Amino acid sequence: MREDESERGSASYRVVIEYDGTDFCGFQFQPQERTIAGELEAVLSRLFGQTIKVTGAGRTDAGVHALGQVISFTAHDAFPVERLAIALNSALPADLSARDAARVEPRFSARLSATERHYFYVVLASKRPSAAMRRFSHFEHRELDLDRMRRGAAGFVGTHDFASFCGVPPDNGDTVRTVRGVEILEHRELVLIHTRANGFVHRMVRIMVGTLLEIGCGRRPEDSLPAIFEARDRSAAGLTAPPQGLFLAGVTYPDFSSERAFV
Amino acid sequence: MREDESERGSASYRVVIEYDGTDFCGFQFQPQERTIAGELEAVLSRLFGQTIKVTGAGRTDAGVHALGQVISFTAHDAFPVERLAIALNSALPADLSARDAARVEPRFSARLSATERHYFYVVLASKRPSAAMRRFSHFEHRELDLDRMRRGAAGFVGTHDFASFCGVPPDNGDTVRTVRGVEILEHRELVLIHTRANGFVHRMVRIMVGTLLEIGCGRRPEDSLPAIFEARDRSAAGLTAPPQGLFLAGVTYPDFSSERAFV
Repeated sequence: MREDESERGSASYRVVIEYDGTDFCGFQFQPQERTIAGELEAVLSRLFGQTIKVTGAGRTDAGVHALGQVISFTAHDAFPVERLAIALNSALPADLSARDAARVEPRFSARLSATERHYFYVVLASKRPSAAMRRFSHFEHRELDLDRMRRGAAGFVGTHDFASFCGVPPDNGDTVRTVRGVEILEHRELVLIHTRANGFVHRMVRIMVGTLLEIGCGRRPEDSLPAIFEARDRSAAGLTAPPQGLFLAGVTYPDFSSERAFV
Repeated sequence: MREDESERGSASYRVVIEYDGTDFCGFQFQPQERTIAGELEAVLSRLFGQTIKVTGAGRTDAGVHALGQVISFTAHDAFPVERLAIALNSALPADLSARDAARVEPRFSARLSATERHYFYVVLASKRPSAAMRRFSHFEHRELDLDRMRRGAAGFVGTHDFASFCGVPPDNGDTVRTVRGVEILEHRELVLIHTRANGFVHRMVRIMVGTLLEIGCGRRPEDSLPAIFEARDRSAAGLTAPPQGLFLAGVTYPDFSSERAFV
């Protein structure tokens, strides 16, 4: 879009969305695949009567869920924003919903304006799998020592080069991120690993979790993070934990947060 | 099976199972339909090399979930029970799993030996639906007054004729049940309605919940239960709440409980 168009009656929007990622090939648009961006763009383009491209705060992988994903886009300003979430929900498939829509400043970007992302990962620590939890947790039958995991996790906090915890490196090659916290909670058989950072490189949370699980079951020393960071080599870290345990819980902006939690 | 066969090397088993009821046509076997009993009987019959029929503690409807359903069956005793749950899980579909298997007395019946059933119902009380919670909750956008609901729910406790809260009456026509407790908990946007009784007639929990929701949003007086019981007429009670919010949490026997909870 040219600058003069955006000044002639176009508007920027922010929408908080939720999804059950099980049946999506991830957030990013891919032709021929069912993606979050693809579904949103199809419905938004129909509602606005023009081609809409969306930007997401977190480009979640196939199978990863979101309770507080944020998207932004620019379109004409003839659509009443107070009706946008309702209009989206009546057209979107059941596994993708809109919670909240707002007009934002033209320079707002769901991705670039975000100051913090919060993800949590759900582990079902049990001898037996759970059919009811299978879509939303990773089943771990090995005994986990949560205190070992907590001591190990403390090593993530701070600013580090996460090259060893990165699937596909970003275009600009910058894999330095600042982790503001890792918290490990236990609810009966569930272990919840929460983490907040200014940003996450590709697969970072899942590789962090895979590494913590190896620490938790004694396969890896609890003080191994410094050497893994040092290596700047994906093979130095643990396995990538599977996608179905991961939730994008919320995204923080200077004047807004999309956090949603149920329990 | 004839009596003399059951004395010649046959054995009785109890298995605790879990399921995501979304894609099942309920517990009870129905030819041509995907049912919990049908899937279990197919796998058990293959494992034991004989036709197996199972009895379930609760005959949950289509779309209803279970975290602690209990089944019983009789078969020959050549299968090592300590390997039964593992063998079942390697053959069952992902939305149905076995947690625990045990040998039991021949006269044990998952249904008739049970002394208490515990169900809970999950309501998402929010202005907007949630894609992530849609399989496991009922979305209620009307404002709910939980204190009104709690006062109303107190009227369920005790021994009553639940004819007004019954879909299809049982064969013996007995709709009297003893409700031991109804508890309404709130976790952020989720409202959990727990109820325990010696037994439940068909659709009883869902009609109780539907009635409580009408009380909670002010459409029905909070002291209306005595008149509904009195009427002995399904149309006197509220709408049947939809199935996807309902979980069979556990079943209690004189010497065993199958309770499972995650949070």
